Amino acid sequence: MRDAANEERMASEITVGIDIGGTKIQAAAIAKGEVAGSGRVMTPDGGPKAVADAAAEAVDAALAEAGVSRDDVRAAGTGIPGSVDADAGTVANSPNLPGLEGAEPIPFAAMLTDALGGVTARIENDVRVAILGEWKRGAGKPFENLLGVWVGTGVGGGLVLRNELYEGTGPAGEIGHMIVKPGGRECSDGRKGHLESYAGRGRMEVTARELAEKGRKTILFELMEKKGRTRLSSGVFASALEKGDKLAKELVDEAVWALSIALASVQNLLALEAIVIGGGLGDRLGEPFVRRIDDAMQPLLFVPDAAPTLLNSTFGDLSGAVGAAVMVGG
Amino acid sequence: MRDAANEERMASEITVGIDIGGTKIQAAAIAKGEVAGSGRVMTPDGGPKAVADAAAEAVDAALAEAGVSRDDVRAAGTGIPGSVDADAGTVANSPNLPGLEGAEPIPFAAMLTDALGGVTARIENDVRVAILGEWKRGAGKPFENLLGVWVGTGVGGGLVLRNELYEGTGPAGEIGHMIVKPGGRECSDGRKGHLESYAGRGRMEVTARELAEKGRKTILFELMEKKGRTRLSSGVFASALEKGDKLAKELVDEAVWALSIALASVQNLLALEAIVIGGGLGDRLGEPFVRRIDDAMQPLLFVPDAAPTLLNSTFGDLSGAVGAAVMVGG
Repeated sequence: MRDAANEERMASEITVGIDIGGTKIQAAAIAKGEVAGSGRVMTPDGGPKAVADAAAEAVDAALAEAGVSRDDVRAAGTGIPGSVDADAGTVANSPNLPGLEGAEPIPFAAMLTDALGGVTARIENDVRVAILGEWKRGAGKPFENLLGVWVGTGVGGGLVLRNELYEGTGPAGEIGHMIVKPGGRECSDGRKGHLESYAGRGRMEVTARELAEKGRKTILFELMEKKGRTRLSSGVFASALEKGDKLAKELVDEAVWALSIALASVQNLLALEAIVIGGGLGDRLGEPFVRRIDDAMQPLLFVPDAAPTLLNSTFGDLSGAVGAAVMVGG
Repeated sequence: MRDAANEERMASEITVGIDIGGTKIQAAAIAKGEVAGSGRVMTPDGGPKAVADAAAEAVDAALAEAGVSRDDVRAAGTGIPGSVDADAGTVANSPNLPGLEGAEPIPFAAMLTDALGGVTARIENDVRVAILGEWKRGAGKPFENLLGVWVGTGVGGGLVLRNELYEGTGPAGEIGHMIVKPGGRECSDGRKGHLESYAGRGRMEVTARELAEKGRKTILFELMEKKGRTRLSSGVFASALEKGDKLAKELVDEAVWALSIALASVQNLLALEAIVIGGGLGDRLGEPFVRRIDDAMQPLLFVPDAAPTLLNSTFGDLSGAVGAAVMVGG
């Protein structure tokens, strides 16, 4: 099938999507609206140029899987956390990316274009591209009024309202910083009682460490070491849950509780059609997690008859990469 | 100034707006985008036709103040609580209007057209027309992303997003039923810990009565009787607050607290430009109330630099009537 004519035909159709996270960088090669290949590398901590080079590596892996080369790529879209000026191609305030955490905008799109050997790269906020991926190609396809919730290290959100990505006047979609329990558990931003305080993997880990130090029994840290990790990854939480660890169960129960409150409040305000739940923890805990959130949310809805459809993300941790490709026409 | 030529010129410009509430019906006559006259009658409890007749009375009062007659009216818009089908001209599920509280849609627009002697009446949900009034003619004029919060007997909300009224897929804007304290005080819908549980005048009255029965000292009920009321109206709360009543202060403090939490959560999600606060209690407590909510909200914002502008409504309890007129071109 890899004859020259076929490759030429495919070539004009290839777009690449990149999703840059604090831990890993994912890439997807999209041909005719389908994922033809994907790649993943760990995020280096050598600054923005090193990140751009690593992203190019992930892209090469995705292209290899798709059986095409860089020359075949029409455009590259990229999702990156932080304050992104898409038109200027700059990013700032990205706390988990060394060298990009400051307030000074860094011309990351240009660095990425260089690293990709001249392929024009466009950047956008990572949460915005993730909802775009699920809306245009995944679970959110049938809907005009849609919330995407990314339950990962933090908790992010993206909104499609009246069939358009909603941007507001600033960083909209910060559902992780909605207040679910005034005066409650501390969040990553130092404020209290946020959704992310209870449902963000990062804050769940902080709580687990505190409780373990106080003598709470748990196999979470043992599992972490067995897996060769230094963090309580989503996989560690999932394994501990399967093995009946009480602390893991308690923390996931609290995440379900916090999500049900925040999502019910959003639904009562916005009367959405659907809510897609993704992110590392959302994907890893999967369908049973989403069903539990749905069940907990129902009694809190003002109009139970107009409950939103709750769905798992289609692309899992590739939502961002797929959406980034969609952004540039993939 | 009331010469025939002048009246004729004005005639083609007159639209009427009606706001039907559980307690009172308000009407405004709008000429060239300005309120030329207003009228108010108490809401009768004799069923939908009696309500339509009373609305016509309020309209006549507004027209008299504007110096015009029914023949001069181009169109009449009406805001009414409940599930409104604007195109069908029907209303259902309006709990505070006797005869309209059922699930059966009542052809109220036609009844109103009859009562107005043939002037075409269009109906819409009351909260939706109120935000329309403030957005098109009042405090919300400069903004494209705007929340209106109506702090009255209940707490309602209306959203303008990207320069359009936001409707969602059902009854959007139910900000009063956002959860500010899980498991907290009971709300009008029987659920717990809603914004309305703390900031709705109706629920504040329920709490005041409970605490008074338990022996809490307060002048609220004395003031109510002096004013010849059977309910703790917004005016009663305002007077008690002025006189330093501790219970009134406590209840208003809680309303401020609950509003600050809900509004911060909405802001963190939607990145709005402005929030307009109206409704009976919002208008009566006025600027100091809005400033207190603003102050309490600031520390809860995820992006304090992008704080929304908090404003009092321009038209006070006429917002709904003005918006209803705007709906039909006024």
